[in-house]
Amino acid sequence: MAPRLQVSRRQRATPYTPKVEALGVSGYSVVNHTILPKGFGQSEQDDYRHLKQYVQLWDVGCQRQVEIAGPDAALLAQKMTPRDLRRAEVGQCLYAPMIDTDGGMLNDPVILKLGEDRYWFSIADADMLLWARGLALGLGLDVSVGEPDVWPLAIQGPRADDLAARVFGEELRRLGFFRFMRCDFDGHEFIVARSGFSRQGGFEVYVDGFERGAALWDALWEAGQGLGLAPGYPNLIERIEGGLLSSGNEMTRANNPFECNLERYCSLDPELDYIGRDALAAVAASGPARRIRGLRFDGESCPPCQHPWPLARDGRRVGYVTSAAWSPRFEENVALAMLERESWGNATTVEVLCGDGSRRRGRVCELPMEES
Amino acid sequence: MAPRLQVSRRQRATPYTPKVEALGVSGYSVVNHTILPKGFGQSEQDDYRHLKQYVQLWDVGCQRQVEIAGPDAALLAQKMTPRDLRRAEVGQCLYAPMIDTDGGMLNDPVILKLGEDRYWFSIADADMLLWARGLALGLGLDVSVGEPDVWPLAIQGPRADDLAARVFGEELRRLGFFRFMRCDFDGHEFIVARSGFSRQGGFEVYVDGFERGAALWDALWEAGQGLGLAPGYPNLIERIEGGLLSSGNEMTRANNPFECNLERYCSLDPELDYIGRDALAAVAASGPARRIRGLRFDGESCPPCQHPWPLARDGRRVGYVTSAAWSPRFEENVALAMLERESWGNATTVEVLCGDGSRRRGRVCELPMEES
Repeated sequence: MAPRLQVSRRQRATPYTPKVEALGVSGYSVVNHTILPKGFGQSEQDDYRHLKQYVQLWDVGCQRQVEIAGPDAALLAQKMTPRDLRRAEVGQCLYAPMIDTDGGMLNDPVILKLGEDRYWFSIADADMLLWARGLALGLGLDVSVGEPDVWPLAIQGPRADDLAARVFGEELRRLGFFRFMRCDFDGHEFIVARSGFSRQGGFEVYVDGFERGAALWDALWEAGQGLGLAPGYPNLIERIEGGLLSSGNEMTRANNPFECNLERYCSLDPELDYIGRDALAAVAASGPARRIRGLRFDGESCPPCQHPWPLARDGRRVGYVTSAAWSPRFEENVALAMLERESWGNATTVEVLCGDGSRRRGRVCELPMEES
Repeated sequence: MAPRLQVSRRQRATPYTPKVEALGVSGYSVVNHTILPKGFGQSEQDDYRHLKQYVQLWDVGCQRQVEIAGPDAALLAQKMTPRDLRRAEVGQCLYAPMIDTDGGMLNDPVILKLGEDRYWFSIADADMLLWARGLALGLGLDVSVGEPDVWPLAIQGPRADDLAARVFGEELRRLGFFRFMRCDFDGHEFIVARSGFSRQGGFEVYVDGFERGAALWDALWEAGQGLGLAPGYPNLIERIEGGLLSSGNEMTRANNPFECNLERYCSLDPELDYIGRDALAAVAASGPARRIRGLRFDGESCPPCQHPWPLARDGRRVGYVTSAAWSPRFEENVALAMLERESWGNATTVEVLCGDGSRRRGRVCELPMEES
């Protein structure tokens, strides 16, 4: 049995914590010094099946925002990402790698362009606030950098539109992918984006004001009766099958964005001024030495991957698994794996040294994973 | 029952994780993206009594180091703290607040001065690496900033000298408080400091090289037989009684170091160049508006403090509790609390709105707590 999480003030509760605790939350993770529900007593496989059929409400208050505002906001935002932000529009969400001088991945936020001089970086697990503030201070930029009182709540699954429309109105159905709009609930305008950490569709509500969270949760919960609504959380199986990468798992500072299949979010335009451009240009010239690929492997349901599992081919190490789970859809284990160039081709056969000590036979595959 | 911690690669294991799991670790916290054992099946009160009488081995691999090295290392180190580092000596450990431009607490590391141009900031829970790298990059400093492969292991308790001497040699007994030296074990020189997150005395070994950790743990474990050695962890009760503050619990970015009783680590010398000096000078001029104090309060054993508990006096809010526990020594509840100026005097009576909904009668007291 996994040890219990000891919670102190340092692991922040969210506006939804009392709700998920009343619903019997059985597991937590910690992201951005905030607790993230990771189970409700059902198996992850049951939650996976439910997510693909109905709709779930996720407490993702741990997705913290770094707000960059002021005259130099656009300049600082661009400095921190290789994604070309020059033609970004207000109302747009932009998935964007953040990298260091050596090209190493620091984070992979969704950037919300709130105004010409106001951005939110909705971040994965790292204190990007300190990076942004350190840069702004060192460079002497005229910009404010802070963490607003915003607590995202995700509505995910094929019935997400029906649920969101009941609470925020029908116009939300016409919202484009990775766009956001302001929607009234109970006299307050909430930012709602068509986005989320699953491939099943849905929304993220950027609840501004801790004290507004509980009422919105309750309204969504009530509206979801009859739609099969259940509490949920980012589902490991669905995320692996869908090829959604997790910062700190698939990508660390030791990986560049090309290794993480993020080329399409990296501009090498020499007129673009961002940290790490020279390093990225060098990677682009030679091509990455390794890449995240899908992997399917034999044997019984594997344990959770808590440290990289070595992959071998002809007795030589050719990569490692970063996340793994049993897939009810494929009826075998599925994984995300970092593979050396000569071994990343589809259907390459590798040996997996699984965390339980067993050796399994695996085959490299596309992401997202498709029926073979 | 508290939910279980779901561990993925993102929550790093330490070299000692297999050891503490074999010993039945029952609780974890997460610090610096690394798991920290927080219980071994005994009650925290039993572990408290043991810590004050014998010796414990703590897996504190989560205390990560930010290494600042190179020609501008001293300049950057000083920029990041109000503690005057000008007369710091090689071999010295320095407890040092790190603050933002507005004086807000970012972290409270122990700085190890390894050389004239090489420092380790042994940090509490926040990515200070990003702060240091952002500043260095923005300011164009000639310095390298990185996280070395170092995994601290703490030996704490009144018999720590006996245990450490058995493994590292007798000369360690003469090591001064907050000094470090290099000690041989199995042909490798380890940095050992007389320090640690308890008031019971002991050492922290800065184990450089993940692969060296297990053998050192085993040697200490074996040497501790007959000394009453047990696995342990930073003990909440002992820390509250001793007035040891925890970053993220007692101090956040909303607090300045004066509020946290850290004046003696803050120089206001106008020749010292550090971030936040003007803000600190303003606080020093007016005096802090609130302070962390001790608090003892009535009633049965209180629940863990997972969010600040309000303190009232004559129906008016005068502060909040940040950490609380039942004290076997005082046979009442003890707490650390942030109190407004007019209510921080010794023996001031306040009402505690406890996390379980009960109202308790509390009395402000000195830190460290003494018999009354």
